[in-house]
Amino acid sequence: MDVSIKATLELLKRGAEEVIPEEALAERLAEGRPLRVKAGFDPTAPDLHLGHAVLIGKLRQLQELGHEIIFVVGDFTAMIGDPTGRNVTRRPLTREAITLNAQTYREQVSKLLDADRTRILYNSAWLEPLGAAGLLQLAAQATVARMLERDDFSQRYRAGQPIAVHEFLYPLMQGYDSVVLEADLELGGTDQKFNLLMGRQLQQAYGKRPQAILTTPLLEGLDGVKKMSKSLDNYIGVTEPPGSMFGKLMSISDTLMWRYMELVAQCPPGELQRLRGAVADGLNPMEVKLDLAEGIVARLHSRGSAEAARAAFLERFRHREVPDDLPLLEVHASEGLMIGAALREAGLVSSTSEALRLISQGAVRVDGDRIADSKRILRPGSTYLLQAGKRRLARILLI
Amino acid sequence: MDVSIKATLELLKRGAEEVIPEEALAERLAEGRPLRVKAGFDPTAPDLHLGHAVLIGKLRQLQELGHEIIFVVGDFTAMIGDPTGRNVTRRPLTREAITLNAQTYREQVSKLLDADRTRILYNSAWLEPLGAAGLLQLAAQATVARMLERDDFSQRYRAGQPIAVHEFLYPLMQGYDSVVLEADLELGGTDQKFNLLMGRQLQQAYGKRPQAILTTPLLEGLDGVKKMSKSLDNYIGVTEPPGSMFGKLMSISDTLMWRYMELVAQCPPGELQRLRGAVADGLNPMEVKLDLAEGIVARLHSRGSAEAARAAFLERFRHREVPDDLPLLEVHASEGLMIGAALREAGLVSSTSEALRLISQGAVRVDGDRIADSKRILRPGSTYLLQAGKRRLARILLI
Repeated sequence: MDVSIKATLELLKRGAEEVIPEEALAERLAEGRPLRVKAGFDPTAPDLHLGHAVLIGKLRQLQELGHEIIFVVGDFTAMIGDPTGRNVTRRPLTREAITLNAQTYREQVSKLLDADRTRILYNSAWLEPLGAAGLLQLAAQATVARMLERDDFSQRYRAGQPIAVHEFLYPLMQGYDSVVLEADLELGGTDQKFNLLMGRQLQQAYGKRPQAILTTPLLEGLDGVKKMSKSLDNYIGVTEPPGSMFGKLMSISDTLMWRYMELVAQCPPGELQRLRGAVADGLNPMEVKLDLAEGIVARLHSRGSAEAARAAFLERFRHREVPDDLPLLEVHASEGLMIGAALREAGLVSSTSEALRLISQGAVRVDGDRIADSKRILRPGSTYLLQAGKRRLARILLI
Repeated sequence: MDVSIKATLELLKRGAEEVIPEEALAERLAEGRPLRVKAGFDPTAPDLHLGHAVLIGKLRQLQELGHEIIFVVGDFTAMIGDPTGRNVTRRPLTREAITLNAQTYREQVSKLLDADRTRILYNSAWLEPLGAAGLLQLAAQATVARMLERDDFSQRYRAGQPIAVHEFLYPLMQGYDSVVLEADLELGGTDQKFNLLMGRQLQQAYGKRPQAILTTPLLEGLDGVKKMSKSLDNYIGVTEPPGSMFGKLMSISDTLMWRYMELVAQCPPGELQRLRGAVADGLNPMEVKLDLAEGIVARLHSRGSAEAARAAFLERFRHREVPDDLPLLEVHASEGLMIGAALREAGLVSSTSEALRLISQGAVRVDGDRIADSKRILRPGSTYLLQAGKRRLARILLI
């Protein structure tokens, strides 16, 4: 293999979970033409967050290498909604709503990619004309047994949970996107591996050259446990204001910090090792976290706003006037804790009603920020500085 | 229940395997309007045979009771062909071929039903406009687990034999036919029970009143073992000439004769019992068989041609000049036997090549008919009179 191809392949593999098959990707890179790189997105939730940023980071790398990025917005099924009608929150989207979502995507994507060199396509453009006959023909290309190999299907089938027949058509339609686009490479999270491989299979069935696939690890959300997702409210949106983004990043655990360093900041392995060594030798991990937060905010906003967010954070941090010897209280709350209960657990109030009264008076702060929402949840795995009035202070760690 | 409704229901149930649910059918019969009675047919094989006649006999009964018969020709999937491409014999049918097949159906059906009061519809009329989106929506109406309950699917799944995903769409499309037609009642063989029930389920899902279903037993072919089908060559086509039809019916075993009496001739239970008693008391079963054959030929052709066929058969039978004391030779051949081998087993020739020579000379007869095809198969369960030349005679029974 050509040395430069080998280097490119190594670069692309960095932070990726798998490349299948590597030889196919190497072969295409060697062709020296811009590759058609595909990634699919759901048009129902246009709020991109750092979890998406991992994958989009890889797309940016590919774009910088001169390849063509194609964002496929899966609007076809969105226009149908959830056909089972079981999921009331998933109503059919109108054409207008989908166009609007795509516009929002474009704005968000422009924070991470060169928008002018990114094509955004809607898969209804080729799935609708397929017709009932074409869809039937598509459905003939895979077996039921193969579908039931997909992790979530097999788990649900074994558990006796219903799988509607049309759910089997989704991976086929996603794969058909690759057929139509003649994709050379498709990117997706590890949870998309089955669907990406289906694209390969269908391209072969339709007489096309099968794509290579590249999977990216799923980023844990702020809780450090579950996959980052909007519905779990453990996410950082890519369009969030610099201050909020900076604060959220500073609240993550040290363990999660290393993960974000690797996946979001795409810190090279050597540098990562150097920093871990430094922390082991006594460097305050907060310094690493400050640089991580500043780097991410700079990428998504600007260098200037990142520096300002850092300065503001440190300013607030310094003015907390926290006694140096304030002990760290560990509280068992694996599901998280509401602010009122946290104040009581920390011994700062004698009852939840007292907590609520203090919150309504604006006398409660968490990490220096005044709390107005009495339903505010504190997350497990994080340390918080709680204040009730001027003098009542506690540091708690939810475990 | 009204006495006349009860009587009608009993009449419809005669010879039927199941009516589900009986109350639903009784309820509709009580409405006093012509019911919409649906039966589906495959447009790839327009050769109707006595196996279909069982079901069509029921349709005729319903028609005589004033109900509307709708023949649904499943042309939609036929135009697609076998999308897997595995079955080379099942190529896509052109629109012309389908129209021609439907015309052939109409001619054949006219032998069994009042063609002027029978509607023949093609399901592509509503399945094509469904589009990819509509088909997807249809596929959402049933679960994978439910599909895998269908006997042949569960057997194949357990045996590790492939089931293509589009096969799950067939019962759904057949069921959707009932939705569109607002069928009150659907008829089918027992092997169609799952699909007929799917029609009920889909009508409910689409806000329609669910149909009742009536299943008819599957008629065994001439071999008395396997389901009558064209591909097994154990059938009697409804358009076969009177003589051939008569001869085939006379060749069936006595056991099978009773089955045909019940299912094809729809002989009332009392009459059937009377005849069985008479045979037990010494009546030659051949007499019953002659009446059966004559009745069926009369129904499918005319009274006159049936009488002529009977006379011709008896004439040939008498002129065989078979010694009364010719012993019956039992030959073990559960898979059937080729004529040459049968002659050798019966001791009429010393080698297969001698048999072939005699056949080519026109010197070999089976049941009095001269044999030209040296590949002619003799079926197990039947008795044959073999002749090689004038003098060499044997009666064999294949078991």
